[in-house]
Amino acid sequence: MTFPRVGVIGGGQLARMMAPAAEALGVGFHVLAETETACATEVSAHVTVGDYRDYATLKAFAETVDVITFDHEHVPAEHLRALAAAGHPCRPGPEALIHAQDKLVMRAKMDELGLPNPRWAQVTTTEALAAFGAEAGFPLILKTPRGGYDGHGVRVIHEPAEAADWLAEGRPLLAEEKIDFTRELAVMVARSPMGQTAVWPVVATYQQDGICKEALAPAPGLDAELATQISADVLTVAGSLGVTGVMAMEMFETADGYVVNELAMRPHNTGHWSQDGAITSQFEQHLRAVLDLPLGDPSAHAPATVMVNVLGADRDDLYHAYLHVMAHDPQVKVHMYGKSVRPGRKLGHVNLTGEDPAELLRRARHAADYIAGTDPNPHPDLRTGGAEHLLGGGTGPAAEGTRS
Amino acid sequence: MTFPRVGVIGGGQLARMMAPAAEALGVGFHVLAETETACATEVSAHVTVGDYRDYATLKAFAETVDVITFDHEHVPAEHLRALAAAGHPCRPGPEALIHAQDKLVMRAKMDELGLPNPRWAQVTTTEALAAFGAEAGFPLILKTPRGGYDGHGVRVIHEPAEAADWLAEGRPLLAEEKIDFTRELAVMVARSPMGQTAVWPVVATYQQDGICKEALAPAPGLDAELATQISADVLTVAGSLGVTGVMAMEMFETADGYVVNELAMRPHNTGHWSQDGAITSQFEQHLRAVLDLPLGDPSAHAPATVMVNVLGADRDDLYHAYLHVMAHDPQVKVHMYGKSVRPGRKLGHVNLTGEDPAELLRRARHAADYIAGTDPNPHPDLRTGGAEHLLGGGTGPAAEGTRS
Repeated sequence: MTFPRVGVIGGGQLARMMAPAAEALGVGFHVLAETETACATEVSAHVTVGDYRDYATLKAFAETVDVITFDHEHVPAEHLRALAAAGHPCRPGPEALIHAQDKLVMRAKMDELGLPNPRWAQVTTTEALAAFGAEAGFPLILKTPRGGYDGHGVRVIHEPAEAADWLAEGRPLLAEEKIDFTRELAVMVARSPMGQTAVWPVVATYQQDGICKEALAPAPGLDAELATQISADVLTVAGSLGVTGVMAMEMFETADGYVVNELAMRPHNTGHWSQDGAITSQFEQHLRAVLDLPLGDPSAHAPATVMVNVLGADRDDLYHAYLHVMAHDPQVKVHMYGKSVRPGRKLGHVNLTGEDPAELLRRARHAADYIAGTDPNPHPDLRTGGAEHLLGGGTGPAAEGTRS
Repeated sequence: MTFPRVGVIGGGQLARMMAPAAEALGVGFHVLAETETACATEVSAHVTVGDYRDYATLKAFAETVDVITFDHEHVPAEHLRALAAAGHPCRPGPEALIHAQDKLVMRAKMDELGLPNPRWAQVTTTEALAAFGAEAGFPLILKTPRGGYDGHGVRVIHEPAEAADWLAEGRPLLAEEKIDFTRELAVMVARSPMGQTAVWPVVATYQQDGICKEALAPAPGLDAELATQISADVLTVAGSLGVTGVMAMEMFETADGYVVNELAMRPHNTGHWSQDGAITSQFEQHLRAVLDLPLGDPSAHAPATVMVNVLGADRDDLYHAYLHVMAHDPQVKVHMYGKSVRPGRKLGHVNLTGEDPAELLRRARHAADYIAGTDPNPHPDLRTGGAEHLLGGGTGPAAEGTRS
């Protein structure tokens, strides 16, 4: 038997959700986890606990597997280059991964490829920030180029003084025009070393406090030409960057098209719907891509799938809520991560597949919020790209733009 | 957090395929495996290697989990009774499980419930066997009541002398009329301790040398009244026996209805299609049932799903075949068990979901046989209930009966 072993660096929920795909494919599944209680440590017989910032730890782990991939994007690029040079395939490789690690590098690359960027600038001084603000307008978005996720490292700035603490650190920052968007979109692509690619349908997403809360696949009412353009563009990005594995491109939908927001080079929250709604899930596809196997069909197998995250509230006993949620809705698919509860923490998600996105969204919100124990009505404000915009319903002033 | 831990006795592919469902539900998943290389040892961080025939081993394992279930039906009933008496829930319990462990007990129960049995008799002597044969006709089917699976412990007997060796052992045997069937059917049911039940669509199955080779869900062309009757009957069985977990009822379809063949009280090969073709797979449903959670919707989410087993041939390198199979058919879902190759051994299966069962069957056979490395045309003989009968196509003399 010559089944390869995949090694995942990082023991979070993305690693955890790759395990079923590895089981089905019959490939080995090894995890380098941060701690003994990381949530992917439950789902494999081959877990190493160690620090991904330590090269010796990475190298020892790499010796036990045939290909390395990632639960997150925080492994230092120089370590990945050293591993690759030592004959350990890392997928994606450091040259691709840098575009998900460093937002300044990403913005420059999008410009080079001619993709729709917001106006942006690299700033290191208050004067440069003020100059950019004078041109692009305040408020603007300020980001630390590295280390950000789920809203960390992102700030809305109304005047340069609000950036004083970050600027004092002396590192370059990314200033971006604040986009007047109708809703947020995301698209996932897979690419294998042999160069095969597959793109899932474009989804609509709703972010709450910088955290992905909901996704609808496909994005309801999305203009077909725009969907085609986005699919073509994400293939350009994946090919130009030499991505191996799956990649998410998050976007803002605007009155006349879209603007690239961020890239993530791993399975992504906006792709979780594919576990229950696509012929090939992002987790299976990611493993197929990093193993250089032919890719699976990314088509949806139902007219609509909705994903809603379970975000931690102040109740610890999530399991008890299953009794209500499962009895209430026998079609809901529950995916929990085995994590301890902290307010706002992603603890799991639910998927629902069917015909009508509005109905699925209502049911999935009920299930997710009931499990978390949150107020069942924390839902959105139309003005800020709220969840009704997910439906492309034209119910708010911004949404009207989508229809123009 | 109060997520329970499920303990599975047996480390085979059924335990292995429960792991993804446990991961999604966030429940603990512990395995008592026969050997260190049993195929479920790969998919959990909580594996004990030990002998399920040893009570002390079972008891120590039970102490680490909240509920016990099974990968197979071979755990001695007296051990299960002792575990239950010591406060360790076993699901299914010994009183239900005996009907899957002992075929004589099962036949008597089916008679008691008024379900369609073949003519049968318990025989211990050549004279009794001859008398039954005179009544029911030769050839007849002779079975060891216990320990049989995948065709083991089953013999076609043309005259009493062919049973001499088994009769010499002095244990009672089960003699059954040989049924003139048009095709084989199977149905799966789930039942929880609170008494909730769910039935999947009836499937058509094809056995090769006593091993399940193919299943089509739903059984093409099955008479709607017969399907309803079968669903009602399997609910009667599950309720009357007090089953907890999933149960398979295998049947022969005959000219005027059906006859019960066997019961299996665990996830079953004829239910593997549900992994990719039903809203709730048999593995998730089994865990929900043994945890006494509300059951999920067992409906199919596509018009047709086909499952074909990968049976070992003489080629060891199964993985290499993925390159062809996945490139040839991007929709095929591969499920491999991580087992070493032996001729005729169940190494995995493939599922395909779509519209046309005949087309899906052709594609799934190609994929499964290509992975195994078997002759792509070993397929069936119409006279013996071959695979064309799965389709209810009326192409052979026996199939004509189905239409009458």
